[in-house]
Amino acid sequence: MTKRGYAVRPLDEFGLIRSWTEGRQPREFLAQAGVTLGIGDDAAIVAGGSAAQEWLLAMDTMVEKVHFLNETMGESDVGYKALSANVSDIAAMGGIPKFALVSVSVPPSWDADRMKRLYDGLYECAERYGVAIIGGDTTSAPNQLVVAVTVIGTVEAGQAIRRSGAKPGQFVFLTGPTGLSAGGLHGLMNKAESLSLRLTQAHQRPSPSVRAGRILLEHGWGASLNDVSDGVASEAWEIAEASGVKLLLKETLLPLSGELASYAHDNGIQPLDFMLYGGEDYVLLGTADKRSEQEMRVRFRAEGIPLFVIGEVEAGEPEVVMETASGAYKPVLKQGYNHFPKG
Amino acid sequence: MTKRGYAVRPLDEFGLIRSWTEGRQPREFLAQAGVTLGIGDDAAIVAGGSAAQEWLLAMDTMVEKVHFLNETMGESDVGYKALSANVSDIAAMGGIPKFALVSVSVPPSWDADRMKRLYDGLYECAERYGVAIIGGDTTSAPNQLVVAVTVIGTVEAGQAIRRSGAKPGQFVFLTGPTGLSAGGLHGLMNKAESLSLRLTQAHQRPSPSVRAGRILLEHGWGASLNDVSDGVASEAWEIAEASGVKLLLKETLLPLSGELASYAHDNGIQPLDFMLYGGEDYVLLGTADKRSEQEMRVRFRAEGIPLFVIGEVEAGEPEVVMETASGAYKPVLKQGYNHFPKG
Repeated sequence: MTKRGYAVRPLDEFGLIRSWTEGRQPREFLAQAGVTLGIGDDAAIVAGGSAAQEWLLAMDTMVEKVHFLNETMGESDVGYKALSANVSDIAAMGGIPKFALVSVSVPPSWDADRMKRLYDGLYECAERYGVAIIGGDTTSAPNQLVVAVTVIGTVEAGQAIRRSGAKPGQFVFLTGPTGLSAGGLHGLMNKAESLSLRLTQAHQRPSPSVRAGRILLEHGWGASLNDVSDGVASEAWEIAEASGVKLLLKETLLPLSGELASYAHDNGIQPLDFMLYGGEDYVLLGTADKRSEQEMRVRFRAEGIPLFVIGEVEAGEPEVVMETASGAYKPVLKQGYNHFPKG
Repeated sequence: MTKRGYAVRPLDEFGLIRSWTEGRQPREFLAQAGVTLGIGDDAAIVAGGSAAQEWLLAMDTMVEKVHFLNETMGESDVGYKALSANVSDIAAMGGIPKFALVSVSVPPSWDADRMKRLYDGLYECAERYGVAIIGGDTTSAPNQLVVAVTVIGTVEAGQAIRRSGAKPGQFVFLTGPTGLSAGGLHGLMNKAESLSLRLTQAHQRPSPSVRAGRILLEHGWGASLNDVSDGVASEAWEIAEASGVKLLLKETLLPLSGELASYAHDNGIQPLDFMLYGGEDYVLLGTADKRSEQEMRVRFRAEGIPLFVIGEVEAGEPEVVMETASGAYKPVLKQGYNHFPKG
C-alpha cells in the first residue's frame, strides 16, 4: 500500500481478544443461559423466547483518527457507516436487523450541530434497513469521537449461517466486487482528482448485504458466510480456520469494478491489493454446494444482486491460496484491516 | 463540591440527546417493529418472541479521564464497573440481566496485561450476576480507553417498572444509602488517610440492585423506579418529569451511612451534597403505594436488603423539593453527574 491511505497489519487482534475471553465462562453456563453461539463469529446467537426464532447480536465501534478522519468522512457519513457496519454483521449471518443502541463519546471538537448531522446519517441508514433505534448513551470524551453501536436481529432458529460451515467440494463466492472502499479511502486521502462517486460512496456510505444474506438463508444455500469488513483475504482465512479447510481463490475470477480499475490505472496502483486486503466493502464472502450454483445464479440475477464464483473449497490444513493468472499458486496472507496496535 | 473530586453540572445531556433522536422514527414503525419502550428510560423494552416475555436492552460507556482515572480505579475495577453500570440499568426495570457485549477502544498505554486485568474484573462481575459475555469488538484508540457495554435482560411481558409510574399519595423509597461512591472518589482523589474500604468499594466495585428490583416487580410493588447512577436529585427529577408529579423528600429520612458520616466529619465535608448529588451508587430510587409499605418493609428485611422511606409523591408541576431538618422547604436542583461538556 501507499504511505497515505491505510496500512496492512497482521491479524493479532483476534488472538488477543481470544486470550482475554476464551474459556472464561463454562460451556454449561453458556448453554443454560441460552447462548447458541458466543464470541467468534460476526454475531452472537441466543435463544429467542420462542422455539422458531433466535436473536443475533453484534457490536462494532468507530474511533476518530483510527477508523476515519474528518478529511475523509462527513459527520453524517460517520453515523451512516457506524450503523452500516453493524447491520452488515447481521447480514453475514443471514438475519434481519431489527434494533440498535448507539453510544457516542463526544469530544469538544464535535459540537451539537456536528452531532446532529451524525444522527442524521445514522437515522438515514436506520430507515433504509428498517432498524429501530431504541437506546444508547452519550458521554463526553477528551479527544476523539467514539461511536459504538449494538445491533440486534432475528433469524429462524438453527438457520443462522456461520463461518464454520465450509466443506471440501463447495465453491467460494462473493456478492459484489471488493476493494472499492479502500480505493475510495485512498483517493480521499490523496485528494485524487479522478475519484469516482462510486468509490467515495463505497467508503463513506457502504451498503450492507442484508437481502443477499436472506436469499442465501431462505434457500439453504449459504454453507458458510462472512461479511467483507476486514478484506477478502482476512475473511477467507476466518472461514478456512473456522471450518478446517483450504480455500483456493482464482485471481482471474476476482471481480474488478470498472471504477476501481480506472482509478488504479490513473494512479499507478495495483488493484489486486485493494481487492484482497482492502476492507469495509460489506459484500458477503461465502461457500455453497456446487449443485446449487446454477439456481443461485438465476435467483441472484433476478434480484439484481451480483454473484461471483471466485474459487473452491479443498480438504487440507486451513489456509488460503490464490491461483494467479499465469497458473502459479501463491499464499494469500492472513492480513487485512487491523485496528489493534502491536505490542 | 471540592475542586478535586467531581463537578456538578446542569443536566443538559438529556436535552441534547433528545434533540438528536426525538421524533426521528414514526411511532407506527416503532410499534410494528416490536418496540414497547424506546429511548428515555434506564433500558429499552422490545417484544421477546413469546407473549410472556420481553427483552430489556441498555448501553453504558466508560471513558478514561471522564469517568475514571488510573489513580482512582484499577484495571479490573474498570472492567467490573463497566458491566455493573449496565446490569444496574436492567435492575432499574425489575429485570434479570442475561447477556452482554463489550466494546473496548484501546490506547497504546493499555497493554495486553492491563487489558487482561480489565477482563478479569469484567468476568468477575459477569459471574456474580450470571451474565453471559457473548460478543463485542476491540479497536485501537489514540489516547483514552473507552469501554462500551450493552446488556440484555428479560422481564415478564408488560411488567417492567418504568420511571413514569409515580402517582400522588405514593411514598418515595431508596434501597440503600447514597453518596458512598462520591465519598470514595473524593477520598481517592485526595489520597485521604481515613478512607474506609466500604467507600472505595462503593466507588470501584458497585453492586447493582438486581435482587431488590426483582422483589419490587414480583410483588407488583414498584410503581416507578430508577437506579441511582446520576445521583438522587437527578433520578428523582427524572421520575417527577416522566410521571408529571412532585417529589417531596425529607432531609431527616435520607439514609446516611456511618462510613460517609465519619469520612465527611474528618474532612470537613457536607455529606448531604454527596447523598443528593453524588452518583454511581446503583441503589434503587422508586415510588410505591402506601398500602404496600408494611409488607415491603417485612420482605426487604427478610431478604437483608435495606429499605428507606425518604418522602412522598404529591400532585403538582414536576419538581423535587426537600423538607429540611428545620422544617423549611428548599428546591432540590436538577443536577448531578453529567459527563457532557457545555457549549
